[in-house]
Amino acid sequence: MQKKIFAVILSGCGHQDGAEIHEATLTLWAIHKNGAEFQCYAPDIKQHHVLNHITGQEMNEQRNVLIESARIARGKIGALATFNPDSADGLILPGGFGAAKNLSSYAFDGVKCTVNNDVANVIKAMHRAGKPIGALCIAPVILAKVLGKGTLTIGQDAGTAENIVTMGAQHQQTMQGEVAVDRENRIVTTPCYMLNSRVDQIGQGADNLVRAMLEMME
Amino acid sequence: MQKKIFAVILSGCGHQDGAEIHEATLTLWAIHKNGAEFQCYAPDIKQHHVLNHITGQEMNEQRNVLIESARIARGKIGALATFNPDSADGLILPGGFGAAKNLSSYAFDGVKCTVNNDVANVIKAMHRAGKPIGALCIAPVILAKVLGKGTLTIGQDAGTAENIVTMGAQHQQTMQGEVAVDRENRIVTTPCYMLNSRVDQIGQGADNLVRAMLEMME
Repeated sequence: MQKKIFAVILSGCGHQDGAEIHEATLTLWAIHKNGAEFQCYAPDIKQHHVLNHITGQEMNEQRNVLIESARIARGKIGALATFNPDSADGLILPGGFGAAKNLSSYAFDGVKCTVNNDVANVIKAMHRAGKPIGALCIAPVILAKVLGKGTLTIGQDAGTAENIVTMGAQHQQTMQGEVAVDRENRIVTTPCYMLNSRVDQIGQGADNLVRAMLEMME
Repeated sequence: MQKKIFAVILSGCGHQDGAEIHEATLTLWAIHKNGAEFQCYAPDIKQHHVLNHITGQEMNEQRNVLIESARIARGKIGALATFNPDSADGLILPGGFGAAKNLSSYAFDGVKCTVNNDVANVIKAMHRAGKPIGALCIAPVILAKVLGKGTLTIGQDAGTAENIVTMGAQHQQTMQGEVAVDRENRIVTTPCYMLNSRVDQIGQGADNLVRAMLEMME
């Protein structure tokens, strides 16, 4: 049997201004652990900003989302604009503020956010093709904005849950390592660092998410 | 029973010029998975250089090892110079070129390399206190240089194995996920990306390493 292929959209490298590193790494780990393959992508755009991850202060420099994401992907990464939906069986968006600052403007604009065109197009194309989509941490807000439907989880945060409902989706409360599985819309989500979590709980959430998506591919 | 505490020395963020992200993340994951705690440290020094992880080309900028390492540690990281050996039960050095370019000069000077003073002092202090030390990927060369003894693994690479012997240690060949356990010197090593590996094999290696170190702490 041919191995299933997951496209993974990264948003930089570091949770304050890019992809959350543990969530991204443990997504790749869970894909390999369950006998599948991944191909990473990121938009070839400037990061919204660069933050010192010790102080939280903005640094006076610019970084590129694709180039920084390559640190997590060990160099094997494509520009999201080149992604062909036929090449993958499923799509996963790890979290981190990069999802809310680089892939979308959710961190600044809330329910009125815009989503990067390539990100929105990929999500719509995969959804139209009936292929499962997974999102971790804060990334489910992007699915709510683009698809305007679905049962999603961001854990327990009332304000974010309310925004998800305002954007047309439904919210399901979850705890560490748990997933919300929307079989009708073929969407799987898990809260990760939207809750205070240990690193192994991030692994459990990613593993549960990948396994639920693989079941949908059967 | 009090939880065991591992000090983890990071060397930046990204395998070409810093800590290997999968090895570092899966070390933290394995520590939590096995019921222990971690505290991350890195030297507060400039990176040797900054590489574009897609092209491998040098970028015209400077980054700080401690500040970049904080991306992996989610901000909870201390300057290595402030590390108190009494505060930890074991020490782990993940790999990546950061170990061979920032923590030491092994990538440039081979067996004649120098090791960052704080890194060398921490290794010597932990070894003197009889506390186990773990190293992943290329990081075992630092232990060979500082301690000049021990049975270590870097996988299968003949040239690196020869250098380890020249520096006074012994080399044990290993495959993906395996560990070399030196009970006498209380050192555990695993090859990780010194071999062509899947991400889950990096997790297996990190998990086996942490478990072997915990056994030594009993």
